[in-house]
Amino acid sequence: MAIPYFPKFMGSDNSSIPLLPPSSLPLSPPIFTQDDFKKAAAYKAVEFVHSGMVLGLGTGSTAKHAVDRIAELLRLGKLKDIVGIPTSKKTHDQAVSLGIPLSDLDSHPVIDLAIDGADEVDPHLNLVKGRGGSLLREKMVECVCKKFIVIVDESKLVEFIGASGLAMPVEVVPYCWKFTAVRLQNLFEESGCIAKLRTVGGKDGEEPYVTDNENYIVDLYFKKDIGDLKIASDRILRLAGVVEHGMFLDMATTVIIAGESGMTIKNKELEQ
Amino acid sequence: MAIPYFPKFMGSDNSSIPLLPPSSLPLSPPIFTQDDFKKAAAYKAVEFVHSGMVLGLGTGSTAKHAVDRIAELLRLGKLKDIVGIPTSKKTHDQAVSLGIPLSDLDSHPVIDLAIDGADEVDPHLNLVKGRGGSLLREKMVECVCKKFIVIVDESKLVEFIGASGLAMPVEVVPYCWKFTAVRLQNLFEESGCIAKLRTVGGKDGEEPYVTDNENYIVDLYFKKDIGDLKIASDRILRLAGVVEHGMFLDMATTVIIAGESGMTIKNKELEQ
Repeated sequence: MAIPYFPKFMGSDNSSIPLLPPSSLPLSPPIFTQDDFKKAAAYKAVEFVHSGMVLGLGTGSTAKHAVDRIAELLRLGKLKDIVGIPTSKKTHDQAVSLGIPLSDLDSHPVIDLAIDGADEVDPHLNLVKGRGGSLLREKMVECVCKKFIVIVDESKLVEFIGASGLAMPVEVVPYCWKFTAVRLQNLFEESGCIAKLRTVGGKDGEEPYVTDNENYIVDLYFKKDIGDLKIASDRILRLAGVVEHGMFLDMATTVIIAGESGMTIKNKELEQ
Repeated sequence: MAIPYFPKFMGSDNSSIPLLPPSSLPLSPPIFTQDDFKKAAAYKAVEFVHSGMVLGLGTGSTAKHAVDRIAELLRLGKLKDIVGIPTSKKTHDQAVSLGIPLSDLDSHPVIDLAIDGADEVDPHLNLVKGRGGSLLREKMVECVCKKFIVIVDESKLVEFIGASGLAMPVEVVPYCWKFTAVRLQNLFEESGCIAKLRTVGGKDGEEPYVTDNENYIVDLYFKKDIGDLKIASDRILRLAGVVEHGMFLDMATTVIIAGESGMTIKNKELEQ
């Protein structure tokens, strides 16, 4: 369903103004950045939030806009009695700084709605997530949501998982990570898989990126599609040393896509 | 195959003397402890070790005897050029103290032979391991062995996995472990599953047991069998928050069982 883009972009209560470039004239096509699209999708998703909900709060540049918007509506009194379940330490800190009441899965094992970004969305609404490194907590939260709305700009749409040429992350235990990386690469040899440890610049040069759970990330890059994703998922999870992977299969109930051509909402029910 | 017990117990080179109670007379039935059986099985397994092998060194009270015996044969010059891959920090420390040369999976991703104990062995040579807490590293090492010899006393034989009434351990990330424990328990509700966090006595009372990988252990107790073990394995591994479980399916190539009635060797090839 493609819906008119600009009115929704402003927020249904007009409390926010879209970030139009100063040079834009009302009747000329505005120039939106990728971040504008992310924000548009995020604001649309927050329209599905109601007072009293337990909310999964996503992580990443798109989800950040949703968290900001939820906080804004709480401040305005348009939302009340929200309990947020953050999917990373970063989102936890953002939510705390914005005054969103928080809890965790131990206390709230059922979540009404989660809103989060994704790195890839395939035509069946399967996702790649975790390029930001938070895949494990995101998956723990988002697999117990009654509704999981994914918000992306249109650059995230792919024909098949891995088609962007960017990483499909796998969280692994640090112990003998090289061994695990080689086994992961071998698993998808026929798809031209390359496995690389994710690193960050440290004071002594490149160091392994460490997740919130004190694990490492091995990024998998594919040249071709990897076939049946559920089979691929089980093969990865069966490797001792793997903690979790970034394919979120059959989890998204709605995907909101914002781009040059407007906003599109895809629902799982309609897809399958 | 049941084989005569006592001659093998002494070690094929007679370099070790069985731990007979002082009151035993040569012709009266000796009284063996459970630890004697463990040692007998361990010594038998070490007969399969040859010079030049890369060896997976198990963890636990039975595997400890095998590591001791390997070190003894190295000292005696009866084994040479052994490289050990320890399956835990504890075994690492034991092997270092005994002078066994060590390496890891990153450097030696193929292992000739691993010797380790087990907490349960079912009639198909499927195992429960990890009551000692080292299931993840054990599984990483033992899944890449050309040969995996399991050494147990006869008390470890069960009709089905879980039948001992003791724990089937699952290593989980500490983040929201209660949530993961409840999901694990629900997974096997029909088998009367109870999930309990493993704890140890700390200075402030009971504290979570922490694995070598800085994770927690949730012990599962079953009242009935859990059906198809491969399906059960996949269901556990698909839970985000689970790192690994203690069922070692289709991995043991040989099981050596020592008990009152002698020593029995079961081979996978003969079983399947």
